[in-house]
Amino acid sequence: MGNELGITPRGENYSQWYTDLVHKAELADHSVVRGCMVIRPHGYAIWELMQGALDNMFKETGHVNAYFPMFIPKSFLSKEAEHVDGFAKECAVVTHHRLKNAEDGSGVIVDPEAKLEEELVIRPTSETIIWNSYKGWIQSWRDLPVMINQWANVCRWEMRPRLFLRTAEFLWQEGHTAHATYDEAEEEALTILGVYKRFAEEWMCVPVIDGIKSENEKFAGADHTYTIEALTQDFKAIQAGTSHHLGQNFAKAFDVTFQSKEGKLEHVYATSWGVSTRLVGTLIMVHSDDNGLVAPPKLAPVQAVIIPIGRGEKLEAVLDAAAGMEKEIRAQGWDGGIIRTKIDKRDKSPGFKFNDWEMKGACIRIEIGPRDLENGKCVLASRLGGEKIECDIKDVAAKTAEMLSELQTGLYNQALAHREANTSRVDTWDEFKAAFEGEKAGGFIVAHWDGTSETEEQIANETKATIRCIPREPLDPADAEPGKCILTGKPSTQRVVFAKAY
Amino acid sequence: MGNELGITPRGENYSQWYTDLVHKAELADHSVVRGCMVIRPHGYAIWELMQGALDNMFKETGHVNAYFPMFIPKSFLSKEAEHVDGFAKECAVVTHHRLKNAEDGSGVIVDPEAKLEEELVIRPTSETIIWNSYKGWIQSWRDLPVMINQWANVCRWEMRPRLFLRTAEFLWQEGHTAHATYDEAEEEALTILGVYKRFAEEWMCVPVIDGIKSENEKFAGADHTYTIEALTQDFKAIQAGTSHHLGQNFAKAFDVTFQSKEGKLEHVYATSWGVSTRLVGTLIMVHSDDNGLVAPPKLAPVQAVIIPIGRGEKLEAVLDAAAGMEKEIRAQGWDGGIIRTKIDKRDKSPGFKFNDWEMKGACIRIEIGPRDLENGKCVLASRLGGEKIECDIKDVAAKTAEMLSELQTGLYNQALAHREANTSRVDTWDEFKAAFEGEKAGGFIVAHWDGTSETEEQIANETKATIRCIPREPLDPADAEPGKCILTGKPSTQRVVFAKAY
Repeated sequence: MGNELGITPRGENYSQWYTDLVHKAELADHSVVRGCMVIRPHGYAIWELMQGALDNMFKETGHVNAYFPMFIPKSFLSKEAEHVDGFAKECAVVTHHRLKNAEDGSGVIVDPEAKLEEELVIRPTSETIIWNSYKGWIQSWRDLPVMINQWANVCRWEMRPRLFLRTAEFLWQEGHTAHATYDEAEEEALTILGVYKRFAEEWMCVPVIDGIKSENEKFAGADHTYTIEALTQDFKAIQAGTSHHLGQNFAKAFDVTFQSKEGKLEHVYATSWGVSTRLVGTLIMVHSDDNGLVAPPKLAPVQAVIIPIGRGEKLEAVLDAAAGMEKEIRAQGWDGGIIRTKIDKRDKSPGFKFNDWEMKGACIRIEIGPRDLENGKCVLASRLGGEKIECDIKDVAAKTAEMLSELQTGLYNQALAHREANTSRVDTWDEFKAAFEGEKAGGFIVAHWDGTSETEEQIANETKATIRCIPREPLDPADAEPGKCILTGKPSTQRVVFAKAY
Repeated sequence: MGNELGITPRGENYSQWYTDLVHKAELADHSVVRGCMVIRPHGYAIWELMQGALDNMFKETGHVNAYFPMFIPKSFLSKEAEHVDGFAKECAVVTHHRLKNAEDGSGVIVDPEAKLEEELVIRPTSETIIWNSYKGWIQSWRDLPVMINQWANVCRWEMRPRLFLRTAEFLWQEGHTAHATYDEAEEEALTILGVYKRFAEEWMCVPVIDGIKSENEKFAGADHTYTIEALTQDFKAIQAGTSHHLGQNFAKAFDVTFQSKEGKLEHVYATSWGVSTRLVGTLIMVHSDDNGLVAPPKLAPVQAVIIPIGRGEKLEAVLDAAAGMEKEIRAQGWDGGIIRTKIDKRDKSPGFKFNDWEMKGACIRIEIGPRDLENGKCVLASRLGGEKIECDIKDVAAKTAEMLSELQTGLYNQALAHREANTSRVDTWDEFKAAFEGEKAGGFIVAHWDGTSETEEQIANETKATIRCIPREPLDPADAEPGKCILTGKPSTQRVVFAKAY
């Protein structure tokens, strides 16, 4: 841990900076169980705000929530041929349902007599258990569409865990819909892709490229996969959300058919889609700095923190004024809700508090001391930039709201500028390789590709860069023009986006 | 399944009535995995409304949410002596972290090489994993209190599962707080007991007796346990929520100490408390009838359903009117939110729809047909009673709100009358035994007990009745007077509440 604040600067060791920040901002801890994390209240508050916004968006687009069991019979994972290869491998397996006291009094042991007939897997994703239920729910076109979402924990045994970004257990939402036609399922997959993009950009202030995955990178069991991809400050891509058109694959695997309006028995079309606590990691990676968490106002647990300064009797008057300001700021509101405000009354120095709230990503810091109070003034500072602004106490609520709006816009613009500065087009293999070598290497490299899995694999083997997506809309009109594959020189219909990825 | 609606009447077979209702109202299904359930959207919507109300109440009383891993190292469960006996037995045990393809191509098998060094248990409750974290978070009195809640799934391998009431996996919230003194922890345990009682009575319309558990019935690892107990229509008790004062038991087991203001190193005091999806089962058991679900308005997914009647062109005008009514009813609002309203436009007969929404527990049914529309009228019926009331269309929003309030009050009063009619005091062992024999046996039996575990066990062995609680306030002032134990004749300081329990 580097400086006096206790976190390593990004320039020194980006990976360590991220870990330090997650700990020091009290967002999450490692658990004793390898690969698992404890999401601390400050980190969980961000996730709750994300959940609230997304849940509204899902409901506005016609979805309802439900809950399916976390246990999946082992055999279910084998029912869809591609799915089993993608998901049945690194997962938690329940083999017994009872412990008993050890005879030597040393504690508890697994009771060998309580072995399950069929092992259960903790869901790595729920397609199989859900489609097994849908079989019983869907008989006729009248039962369609089924548009269900679930908020749940899932488990994928990760060999190289990283807080929020990749953990053995994580929290997510997973939508699972059933439709009468291919076109309806396609429309649904794209509706959700739009929801995810809007959430990333308007709530998280994270510009994303939305596109389709290559065959190599698509979801195991999908017809095709849509994705949104963000760029971190260390020039890597983060897949922030995916929306899969599953075709009839799961309907066929679980034999889910319906009687069409015309009386024909047909297999149902499906989608599935999800975002996870990885979004919290994405948010940190994109915006935060060497002083700690920078959170977009719409998702910040604390939007305004008031720091009263002074001692003794003078402090009492300041605290009174702070309470009045807090009330006004809350009542002022922003973005359709109250402004989430806190007064920091802890028995600590102002300097400690300034640093602490910078670490924790409070959006606006409001300082007030006895002299300010006499003059009817206070001092405001935004988490972005940090310049101090003097403000009349009577205007503090309006000014806070105004600064929150500026911060929400400013963060998006800053992230967009970073992405644009680190998105480039290359046309030769030497340039391509060079783009992923050296200190500031990476970013989004937009290049031609011959469309084959073999070429994609060879590129990944040599550079560690993968195709993040084939953009739905070309980032630049010229990207849609044909060209020659960066590696093989074979014809290419359009440029695709390469990056090293988290 | 009995009558034409497809559910067995309560009088014929109460247990089958419950199961039929849960299925026919589309609240939940059994999963293929033994003891697990699928919570369907209509059932989950009730749980979401419960979560929303409780989460607000927890936050208003100073709590924050967090998330701890679902995996608990097996050895953790052994750390608190009583806890291990209560929880380490019937639980899901993860022993491996990988599957692999069977060599004979028959599917996937557990990879014997991926055996975990220490087995993991899926949390049956989270005291142990949470107190392991608290050890790192608590050093000084300044770090106290810690007041954390988590919404999570838990697993207790149940041999006799019952939808919502007792399932292998269930959803719940569990609060875990840490305090500097015994008195503060006691105050917290009672604050939460008050929250639970208020939620049961004011939201669920379920009158409950709040009291303390006997030693036999307390939480494994607690100093003492508070509970709220409800009475079902088949005269049994349901434990609807518990709040535990854990004393220093877990702090000692996990060595969580703090430096007091006076500079002394002391063990922390703790509470834990929870309610689960069992509340959905409680709500069904207390209010529902032979026609289906009866849901209190505050927790009903559909508060008002509009059923348009008619055909062809006339139906169009009716649908227009229905849309206008829906808009007004939503805008009218009730209980601080919109009125959750639906228009049933399905291509089904009015009779089918009436029955269907009765089954699903819509609070107010609004019928409108072409003749009603000509007269500027519509017909309203409440789920309780069901008497039809004619109403001017212009007054429908206000009338709906009024009827929701009446239903909320009426359900509580009905449940209270049932409980009072089935609460009795007995003073001899013969009377006591008789009270739990025969057709309409059961209810709350308020009787004297000598305070020993042996007597409680003997009573349970002979009658299957257990002590539900020692009420905090006597139900009747005379209950607080001393007397003689119903079984042993030994001295008793006060009457306690016995019942057979779910």
